[in-house]
Amino acid sequence: MNFFSSDFKLGILGGGQLGKMMLYETRKLDIFTKVLEATDDAPSRIACNEFVKGELLNFDDVYNFGKTVDVLTIEIENVNLSALEKLEDEGTKVYPPTSALRIIHNKATQKLFYVDNNIPTAEFHRFAYTSEIKDSIENGGLSFPFVWKCAQFGYDGQGVKVVRTFSDLEGLPNVECIAEDMVPFKNELAVIVARNSKGEVKTYPVVEMEFHPEANQVEYVICPARIPDAVAQKAQEIALQVADKIKHVGLLAVEMFQTNEDEILVNEVAPRPHNSGHYSIEASYTNQFEQHIRAILGLPLGDTKSKVAGIMVNLVGAEGYTGNVVYQNMEDILKLEGVTPHIYGKKETRPFRKMGHVTIVNKDIDKAREIAEQVKNTIKVISE
Amino acid sequence: MNFFSSDFKLGILGGGQLGKMMLYETRKLDIFTKVLEATDDAPSRIACNEFVKGELLNFDDVYNFGKTVDVLTIEIENVNLSALEKLEDEGTKVYPPTSALRIIHNKATQKLFYVDNNIPTAEFHRFAYTSEIKDSIENGGLSFPFVWKCAQFGYDGQGVKVVRTFSDLEGLPNVECIAEDMVPFKNELAVIVARNSKGEVKTYPVVEMEFHPEANQVEYVICPARIPDAVAQKAQEIALQVADKIKHVGLLAVEMFQTNEDEILVNEVAPRPHNSGHYSIEASYTNQFEQHIRAILGLPLGDTKSKVAGIMVNLVGAEGYTGNVVYQNMEDILKLEGVTPHIYGKKETRPFRKMGHVTIVNKDIDKAREIAEQVKNTIKVISE
Repeated sequence: MNFFSSDFKLGILGGGQLGKMMLYETRKLDIFTKVLEATDDAPSRIACNEFVKGELLNFDDVYNFGKTVDVLTIEIENVNLSALEKLEDEGTKVYPPTSALRIIHNKATQKLFYVDNNIPTAEFHRFAYTSEIKDSIENGGLSFPFVWKCAQFGYDGQGVKVVRTFSDLEGLPNVECIAEDMVPFKNELAVIVARNSKGEVKTYPVVEMEFHPEANQVEYVICPARIPDAVAQKAQEIALQVADKIKHVGLLAVEMFQTNEDEILVNEVAPRPHNSGHYSIEASYTNQFEQHIRAILGLPLGDTKSKVAGIMVNLVGAEGYTGNVVYQNMEDILKLEGVTPHIYGKKETRPFRKMGHVTIVNKDIDKAREIAEQVKNTIKVISE
Repeated sequence: MNFFSSDFKLGILGGGQLGKMMLYETRKLDIFTKVLEATDDAPSRIACNEFVKGELLNFDDVYNFGKTVDVLTIEIENVNLSALEKLEDEGTKVYPPTSALRIIHNKATQKLFYVDNNIPTAEFHRFAYTSEIKDSIENGGLSFPFVWKCAQFGYDGQGVKVVRTFSDLEGLPNVECIAEDMVPFKNELAVIVARNSKGEVKTYPVVEMEFHPEANQVEYVICPARIPDAVAQKAQEIALQVADKIKHVGLLAVEMFQTNEDEILVNEVAPRPHNSGHYSIEASYTNQFEQHIRAILGLPLGDTKSKVAGIMVNLVGAEGYTGNVVYQNMEDILKLEGVTPHIYGKKETRPFRKMGHVTIVNKDIDKAREIAEQVKNTIKVISE
């Protein structure tokens, strides 16, 4: 493939912030890009060569778009998979492959895949409808507490709920779901695996995640994770195993729990650049977006090591503010050492809405952690 | 100023590659951008919010464009300065200020400015027309060899010629020019100074440049320069002095000679992000493009230190090839450690045309230099 040929076209399904950051990397190689997205004001519209309006879950929209490109990738996994399968059958290169997306798309299927492949994961029960859970508890098949997860379309904490009593079940949508054991854990970790279309594989260092207790969104991502080497190595091996078994092409972010006994359990995976890898823009030799592009184009993978320690702070809308966004104290955080804000350009804020992220890099990880906390305590996403 | 307000608009004169790299940085702060450029296929068109077609040297085009933005900056200095002066008079923030651009715009004026401000620079003579040079030599006012420089519109080695005999003068355009002493030197150095609209100033480390002997284009830029600390400090002090005296706002790249006696002589300056700062995208805590944006918006300047050593190799068209560009052995350089290509997207190559650059970063500068040479000897910009 000659990516520099004016004939070559890379298609991206989804026009969000991840797609935008991916598109910046395509510019380094001067690749012609096309984006499919349903809304006119899609963030990545500003960074692509051609923008096509269409629904990501509509068969015809995805199929017709896919027929106009040479390689097709995604920045969000909720897309029409039947259209992708047909495109693959007809010769379009779809990366990640639809077979991988099929496994990931449904949380029940994903969990079964781990079980089938001896990949450690928390115990779970599968239900066709949430309404079946009550019976199962009453029959002794399931017991409180557990984590209810909607099998489809979970994103960023939506579609996930901790269930401790029958009343917690009230109000949950009556959909296909799983009930997962609540395993006590020390840390939430993530490993990003890159696998190119020729089978070359590399892992990024293990990162450590801290979640906001209420919003269930990542608050800090810390690279490298401050865990023993043996645990880090185990996490990387398991992540590699997932990418290998799933026959992935592109980036695969593997989220994991480190239990109190230092066991690693796979939580879930995302088949694309991921929030847990944003630190890589400033900290890594090859950032995750460039790596994804290299992987899907069959190019040699870049160095996944870090130049310096990196910490990412998510910028979410402050509680009590809804409306036109204001980034209070932005200038104060710009004064701090090694701080880079990434504002996503959403015009309206609301409580816990993800509005951007800030990366803090430093040769000294403790210093970075200190500055990250200063950043978090200083900048506030409010409304006018 | 609230840059996040939908009312705020940043204007950039020039739609080239430098502007494109600057625009990527505006996205981090979600700043609304407008670009003025004469050609429909301007590289930065893909990265701005609004594109306006117009001539950079036409008074009306620049003035009318400037009236629609809050802050106006440049990515190339050959713009209509009278329009900028009128815009400044009427309240538009023009950075760098027109007074600085007036000094830089004409090489004779620039040299006189150095003399007036006790900034060390090579001796020179000024001529209203090239044709006057012959007389001056015959009268003993000037002697061979010297460097002839066109006073206006010099760019990338055009408009510069070493003159050793009368015959070297033949064919030179009969324009305003200077004849500069040829000072033997050890090194060509550059220092980028950032100065924001509130007067805060920072310098980047001194870089060392190696030129291609025939094309007179930079071949390697090495950061940090491998020179004694005392020389580096002197170079930074002189660069600061230039930025201060010129009352600059934005980035100022100061190119200098290190003489055999370790004196520093200012060669010339560029009032914008510069080829000698491209390494900063991968190597610095704050890259030069983000720094320029911070400076012109009056934001606190970022850290100018390096995370790792950085070397930049210019990608220029190979001799003997003209036509549709092909980047031969691109995959081979992507296999090397810490290598990031930046292809500018020009469709046609010709000998010595600047087609892109490649950055090599490494904790060890000698290792980086080794890989840089491998890159240079491997990738070839040829035609189909």
